[in-house]
Amino acid sequence: MTVTLSTTADLAIDETAADLLFRAARTTNQWTDAPVTDDELAAAWDLAKFGPTAMNSLPLRFAVVRTPEAKARLVELMPDGNKAKVEDAPATLVLAYDHNFHEHMDTLFPHAPGVGESFAPMDEMRHGMGSMNAHLQTGYLIMGLRAAGLAAGPMHAADYDGVNEAFFAGTGNKAFLVVNVGHAEGEGTVYPRLPRFDLDEVSSTH
Amino acid sequence: MTVTLSTTADLAIDETAADLLFRAARTTNQWTDAPVTDDELAAAWDLAKFGPTAMNSLPLRFAVVRTPEAKARLVELMPDGNKAKVEDAPATLVLAYDHNFHEHMDTLFPHAPGVGESFAPMDEMRHGMGSMNAHLQTGYLIMGLRAAGLAAGPMHAADYDGVNEAFFAGTGNKAFLVVNVGHAEGEGTVYPRLPRFDLDEVSSTH
Repeated sequence: MTVTLSTTADLAIDETAADLLFRAARTTNQWTDAPVTDDELAAAWDLAKFGPTAMNSLPLRFAVVRTPEAKARLVELMPDGNKAKVEDAPATLVLAYDHNFHEHMDTLFPHAPGVGESFAPMDEMRHGMGSMNAHLQTGYLIMGLRAAGLAAGPMHAADYDGVNEAFFAGTGNKAFLVVNVGHAEGEGTVYPRLPRFDLDEVSSTH
Repeated sequence: MTVTLSTTADLAIDETAADLLFRAARTTNQWTDAPVTDDELAAAWDLAKFGPTAMNSLPLRFAVVRTPEAKARLVELMPDGNKAKVEDAPATLVLAYDHNFHEHMDTLFPHAPGVGESFAPMDEMRHGMGSMNAHLQTGYLIMGLRAAGLAAGPMHAADYDGVNEAFFAGTGNKAFLVVNVGHAEGEGTVYPRLPRFDLDEVSSTH
């Protein structure tokens, strides 16, 4: 297993974009002093929001954590190894899926009127559909953040119940991931790139 | 809720890439006759593989379905509304997560020797971690396919147990999504774009 950078087919995006979004982008924990502005987050979201989800369910929600008070609340709920990472980042996103995503489906998916209501009693199904599709959207969001010139550092909290209480009280949002965001200092990390699978190691042809 | 295209912050990628990856890309079901080559899939994978996963676990696997015989097997396992979509697409990817992803972790995540072995008895945890991280990777893969000039049409099968038997027998791979792939004819669909949430509808500031 090696890290293959070159490919034989031409890309439809330029090398700068391919490097920035995929090849040179790293999980970041070293940041410049530049803040993360609302405009930058809007630019990232206004790309990421277009990624497809099942029945256009769009269950991803997030809290943007920037003030020292809110940072301190979040740090308490992180594992020891991730506390300093949250403290150091210009902004930290707490990602959640909305367990009540079905309430918006008459608007989001007008082809199937009433489908949201039919999901209301299906608690376990909404957990699965919400969680899976929010993870899909997280892939789009990380790409959207990079496209907006930001770097991302995804990691896990230690206490997601506590996170829900601190940032999503009174909502159906269930936190599942924490993502530091900012402008990368240099490569954004001192860790060397870990191995990746090549195509023939993950796929079969039929 | 409207579809906001413009944003106030400058992007770090050019408008062509932003349109191709996000803003103009659609879930596709109308294709040109051009085949999907192994080189194109390698180009897409050699971008998508770099997206971050928890502990570099990289659980996404897939079957590339192109022959009439394999297409017919897959069509049998799709819901009626998706059968013609599989038949019409130049290639169809069957996405799965590897429930035995932990067996590769000594290589993929050498910082924590033995961690893969410690996951071996944790069946339910591996299901969750494998599934969540494979969905994350699916977000990267859809972006990678678009970056390689391909269009994607994700949808669900009707019978995932049957899909596992047909395409992943003898492995720990568990199918969770089917994605048509090819070159879009025009916009790739006749359906108008469905609504999207704006940033202030999905986020809170702290």
